[in-house]
Amino acid sequence: MGISLQVNHPQKEAISIFRNNSRYALPVVNDSGVLLGIVTLDDVLRLVEKENTREIQKIGGSEALDEPYTSISFVNLIRKRAGWLVILFLGEMLTASAMGHFADEISKATVLALFIPLIISSGGNSGSQASSIIIRSMALGEIGFADWFFVIRKELFSGLLLGTILGIVGFFRIFLWQHLHLYDYGEHWKLVALTVFFALIGVVLWGTISGSMLPIILKKLGADPAASSAPFVATLVDVTGLIIYFSVAFIILQGTLLK
Amino acid sequence: MGISLQVNHPQKEAISIFRNNSRYALPVVNDSGVLLGIVTLDDVLRLVEKENTREIQKIGGSEALDEPYTSISFVNLIRKRAGWLVILFLGEMLTASAMGHFADEISKATVLALFIPLIISSGGNSGSQASSIIIRSMALGEIGFADWFFVIRKELFSGLLLGTILGIVGFFRIFLWQHLHLYDYGEHWKLVALTVFFALIGVVLWGTISGSMLPIILKKLGADPAASSAPFVATLVDVTGLIIYFSVAFIILQGTLLK
Repeated sequence: MGISLQVNHPQKEAISIFRNNSRYALPVVNDSGVLLGIVTLDDVLRLVEKENTREIQKIGGSEALDEPYTSISFVNLIRKRAGWLVILFLGEMLTASAMGHFADEISKATVLALFIPLIISSGGNSGSQASSIIIRSMALGEIGFADWFFVIRKELFSGLLLGTILGIVGFFRIFLWQHLHLYDYGEHWKLVALTVFFALIGVVLWGTISGSMLPIILKKLGADPAASSAPFVATLVDVTGLIIYFSVAFIILQGTLLK
Repeated sequence: MGISLQVNHPQKEAISIFRNNSRYALPVVNDSGVLLGIVTLDDVLRLVEKENTREIQKIGGSEALDEPYTSISFVNLIRKRAGWLVILFLGEMLTASAMGHFADEISKATVLALFIPLIISSGGNSGSQASSIIIRSMALGEIGFADWFFVIRKELFSGLLLGTILGIVGFFRIFLWQHLHLYDYGEHWKLVALTVFFALIGVVLWGTISGSMLPIILKKLGADPAASSAPFVATLVDVTGLIIYFSVAFIILQGTLLK
């Protein structure tokens, strides 16, 4: 009986060999079959924990620390965190550019600005959900690139349904506040509520689709799927979310608020 | 020799017993010491993977699926995801209320609206980083409630430094765009850039502090630290981030843009 281990990604492959073969120890041999040593299951347990730690830290949007939080030096801690934070910040700057394009619409209809954080964050949240679920499913070997169509179909329906649920809640929030005189969204408040409804469907759908596809694409490109962290997906979806929101607003409010 | 296992949270305790004692199998006995069965290390490996899957899915902002993504029914998938998404949406609605309070400032100084997504998302990103790192560190047993002061001190300095880094980048972004005539932020553009600089420091600092403290507080309250997911922290920080941004704007732009 022989289990051969191609050492491309030794930790992950060793873990999956132990997972699938229910063994306590495996011999390590060189090309001529000479015994080099033994890997035991408790070594693997430690490796699994380490791999999972790396994965969780990356999903959270920093580099893997590779040292315990309690003993890592301040300089290393900042270095591992600042890099991604600056990259995300540079990406998020595109929102300022996008907002610049819509400055005219915002000054005409300030009421539109009120819902910007609500709408773009809903896209970010649904994207974080989708990406974390898919990253984990890929790490467990449940899905790979070949399953992209299965995933996209599942996420298309999920995104549509989740977006519609949030859209309905958002619509009634505006309806209720207007009727209880908690806030006055102006004479065209019904059109504003409709804009929020359709924008939420679009943004959440886009969030789920891109959140689920990004890890699969990264893997295909040879990159680490876990790099498509929750904050990374959220940043991507923020920029496109603004474009979706203002496009919907342009279609619905043209001739009334935006004339 | 006896290792006693109080069965409050059997999976997590079993994992840590195996982790700390380097054993391949442990007997399970009842109160009178009668052997009930044996737990082996490969059972534990499976449990570890399952626990980690739950943790990652929760950090991503959904309920733990508890079924493989490939086989979970559509209804269950939506149920596990919609709950948190709606809760986050309801929380995020506070941003619409907060923005309502600042509608006057926004209509006076539309330029302030341009940087809203950039600033609040920076708080969310730094909060996601901090919470994921702390959640993981707690799951590994490195830190507990008693270490809150150690954590807050480390995160205070991290937040200040990370915020200053982003603040400088943000300041130069405005400076550069203004000088290269890519965008005109108005005659008070220097004050706007200063507002963005200080707001970023405040928001990132707040993001790191609340992101790191939330899991510790949840644990103390008997809740699951992983429930303070990246999206949950981001939502919390979005609302307070807006208040920080407009407060800074009020202090710096009073008498010029906001008169």
